[in-house]
Amino acid sequence: MTDDRLSATFAALADPTRRAILARLSTGEASVNELAEPFEISLPAVSKHLKVLERAGLIARSREAQWRPCILQAGPLKDIANWVEQYRRFWEQSFDRLDEYLKELQGKDKKNGRRK
Amino acid sequence: MTDDRLSATFAALADPTRRAILARLSTGEASVNELAEPFEISLPAVSKHLKVLERAGLIARSREAQWRPCILQAGPLKDIANWVEQYRRFWEQSFDRLDEYLKELQGKDKKNGRRK
Repeated sequence: MTDDRLSATFAALADPTRRAILARLSTGEASVNELAEPFEISLPAVSKHLKVLERAGLIARSREAQWRPCILQAGPLKDIANWVEQYRRFWEQSFDRLDEYLKELQGKDKKNGRRK
Repeated sequence: MTDDRLSATFAALADPTRRAILARLSTGEASVNELAEPFEISLPAVSKHLKVLERAGLIARSREAQWRPCILQAGPLKDIANWVEQYRRFWEQSFDRLDEYLKELQGKDKKNGRRK
């Protein structure tokens, strides 16, 4: 996987309509018309979003059925998951620190309670 | 976290230079000059990338030191990890299917071997 490929995936995901299309496809294959239904945008606009998703390898058009439904392709999402995973320790550290801080506060509360 | 926030994070990550800046900051805080060093782009170009990362909440400028180093902020990365996690079953399924297919092929090989 090249840098360009990862950039194309991130760019494709940087749009709420495109993420909603993926969410819909996660429940099963769908035609372009079915995908367009919940959105208040034109069919050409939906087609444009689908092209971006297809170029990024996030969806494919089935060749089996004549109506050529769109299907989710999860490979690029796995690449995103792998990429972000290398930063996990940073957000887990933040929680550890918050946890320590809360314990410290609770400790102070207990001490104050005893003094009353 | 709103849809817009998630879109801004994805858009900020859709650039190899910006991802390289985050990778550098994962090893510790750095000044703008230090961050610019490995790239063959101008300081104003690096500053522009830093502004995109700052707006997306992926980096912050420290107020403690006078040289105001940049520091990594992992919160939005956690949101990306949570978002992509809902699709994990899809790429794990693909591997399961590949695994089944390979087992099937190996099974056929064994049968063919016996026939020889």
